[in-house]
Amino acid sequence: MPTQPSPLALPLPALAPLAGVRLAAGAAGIRYKGRDDVLLMELAPGSSVAGVFTRNQCPGAPVDWCRAALAGGRARAVVVNAGNANVFTGKAGAAVARTTAEAAAKLAGCKPREVFVASTGVIGEQLPVERLTAALPRLTKALAADAWGNAARAIMTTDTFPKAATRTARIGEATVTINGIAKGSGMIAPDMATMLCFIATDAKIPSAALQKLLSRGARSTFNATTVDSDTSTSDTVLLFATGQARHARVPAEGGPVLRDFARALGEVLHELALAVVRDGEGAQKLIRIDVGGAVSANSAKRIAMAIANSPLVKTAIAGEDANWGRIVMAVGKAGEPADRDRLSVAIGGVWMARNGGVVAGYDETPVVAHMRGREIAIEVDLGLGRGRATVWTCDLTHGYIDINGSYRS
Amino acid sequence: MPTQPSPLALPLPALAPLAGVRLAAGAAGIRYKGRDDVLLMELAPGSSVAGVFTRNQCPGAPVDWCRAALAGGRARAVVVNAGNANVFTGKAGAAVARTTAEAAAKLAGCKPREVFVASTGVIGEQLPVERLTAALPRLTKALAADAWGNAARAIMTTDTFPKAATRTARIGEATVTINGIAKGSGMIAPDMATMLCFIATDAKIPSAALQKLLSRGARSTFNATTVDSDTSTSDTVLLFATGQARHARVPAEGGPVLRDFARALGEVLHELALAVVRDGEGAQKLIRIDVGGAVSANSAKRIAMAIANSPLVKTAIAGEDANWGRIVMAVGKAGEPADRDRLSVAIGGVWMARNGGVVAGYDETPVVAHMRGREIAIEVDLGLGRGRATVWTCDLTHGYIDINGSYRS
Repeated sequence: MPTQPSPLALPLPALAPLAGVRLAAGAAGIRYKGRDDVLLMELAPGSSVAGVFTRNQCPGAPVDWCRAALAGGRARAVVVNAGNANVFTGKAGAAVARTTAEAAAKLAGCKPREVFVASTGVIGEQLPVERLTAALPRLTKALAADAWGNAARAIMTTDTFPKAATRTARIGEATVTINGIAKGSGMIAPDMATMLCFIATDAKIPSAALQKLLSRGARSTFNATTVDSDTSTSDTVLLFATGQARHARVPAEGGPVLRDFARALGEVLHELALAVVRDGEGAQKLIRIDVGGAVSANSAKRIAMAIANSPLVKTAIAGEDANWGRIVMAVGKAGEPADRDRLSVAIGGVWMARNGGVVAGYDETPVVAHMRGREIAIEVDLGLGRGRATVWTCDLTHGYIDINGSYRS
Repeated sequence: MPTQPSPLALPLPALAPLAGVRLAAGAAGIRYKGRDDVLLMELAPGSSVAGVFTRNQCPGAPVDWCRAALAGGRARAVVVNAGNANVFTGKAGAAVARTTAEAAAKLAGCKPREVFVASTGVIGEQLPVERLTAALPRLTKALAADAWGNAARAIMTTDTFPKAATRTARIGEATVTINGIAKGSGMIAPDMATMLCFIATDAKIPSAALQKLLSRGARSTFNATTVDSDTSTSDTVLLFATGQARHARVPAEGGPVLRDFARALGEVLHELALAVVRDGEGAQKLIRIDVGGAVSANSAKRIAMAIANSPLVKTAIAGEDANWGRIVMAVGKAGEPADRDRLSVAIGGVWMARNGGVVAGYDETPVVAHMRGREIAIEVDLGLGRGRATVWTCDLTHGYIDINGSYRS
């Protein structure tokens, strides 16, 4: 079990209270002992909501529940537990999600469909829902506006550090706040890497506009990261707008009035997505991969992901080896248009291979120094077109094998 | 550097001489010291040839050369070196392949386009072709029919054991022989896993028919295996038919007369492909994955490959953990049609999850014993259609990180 925070960990930022959101964390004893493992989040009446979820074809029951609830566009409460993912649990698992939402709705005085639920942890075991519902009255009494840090800690499974981000943005003449927390990626149990993220703002934004912003923002942040190519069954990002701030009216379709808000939301998503990669299982290095010159942005993204998911590239970086040959291999295996003889590769800003061959006499000294650092930059130029993409990943180390090769029982 | 053979290694079978093929192995000192690193294979006049190559978009110069040479359908010689892949070496690398073929052609008294070349090893370094061509006259003098074992050893890079297979087949009333050697998958250098396979038969089969057999055979053997999802830039399988055996005439399109030959060729390909997986970097366990009930065979193959390439599934097996939850995750992330509630998973023949939930009270004892063995069987039934596929892989262990995370210099 990792007892040390990841070497890539960031300090937890202080999140100021946000009008319309109260939180409470507590211990329901679902799997962990002696720590908080459940979070209740309360949202003011009239809060709108947007969400993006795993594309895994075998999603967990909480994801099914949230997808259905999202159709209403309204949110009053969120219940999150750690230690049991409620995935591959059949009809009983669906009943657990519904029972949880009903219990929270009764306490909040809202409809069950205004309650969102999320669970991560072990797969295929029934979640003891009575422990969860028994904790909710206590949590309701403990709700407070200043509990963001405790909330970030309560949703951790085997994360090595809590993850949060905050920004302000202008909407018209008013300033609004965006607070977010996330969990993901450290595992010692027989689980799969799972990612959860909850973001709230006091802005008043219709759910259609909110969803558009979130879907667009996730594309270049959470959906541009990978730890090990294994898409979880539980991935969930929810964005709530409490509408407590006073600002110019935002139309349903969004538009220019949200330009600065979109910028700030993008920064929050980016910071939280990278925090998850920083806590990638066994991660010792954070890797940024920029691919340019591709025939399209989609093609660039697929090539960047092929590099980011290549075990040979990731182990080379773990070994601090600037092995550009493996990057060439990963470009070629992506199945996207690529011309070996136009291809160039840089590591740490030094172009080591250009136009299909090694750069004669390039200076290895700065590359060696770069490889010893915590943050590694890879650039690939395909020389074909104008498609660009950036993705982030971490290295593949003995720590990953230790964490995931341990016995389940 | 691995000094022990893989725990999954098989003994080298004795390969009888095959009419029309002579071989010689020698030391050219291209990278390794004190061991053979070059193979010359001579084929009788009139030998036909078929080949399948890497689908990597950045192939090595030898692959380019072989693809062009294959158009002629004739082969008289093969030159293979270990230690330098001649990949991403630009025009100079193409010249190296041509110079090698020209030198061998002069000695064999044939056209350069009847010479096939293959190289594996380090990427991006110029191959010292003069060392290779200097070795060829010696090798020509040393050619012998009984050197298959030495040949299998000479083409190894960091393989931990030599790989060969042999079968006989009936064509009409005659018996023909198929001999094959392969290399692949153990690496300590900064290279990528690369796979080479050379098969010869004394049968007289037109190149069109030969190509059809090889392409079909590779699909369910070499193309159904994966060690780490990283497609090499050098993968090459070449099949030569010397035509020295006397049997019923085989038409250009092949047909029923080749039924038994196709069976035997399939067995040779299967044995060699699995030998490469058995020598997968760091491999401790050989894993067979059978997917059934998919909407099509292609869909089944993609799902099987998603399981085979999942780091979480592979590390769980390394840890002898029958973690079926990760198999469910891998099925779901494949992007193919799947219905969580119809999905069933078995390990070692024991169905642990059925129709979307865990099988209550399944017997864990045989599963635990199975996981401790060297060969692991995973079965997945999607319950949707009749598509089936089988793929093979190995586990992901600390050995893989050790081998691939070592410094290049």
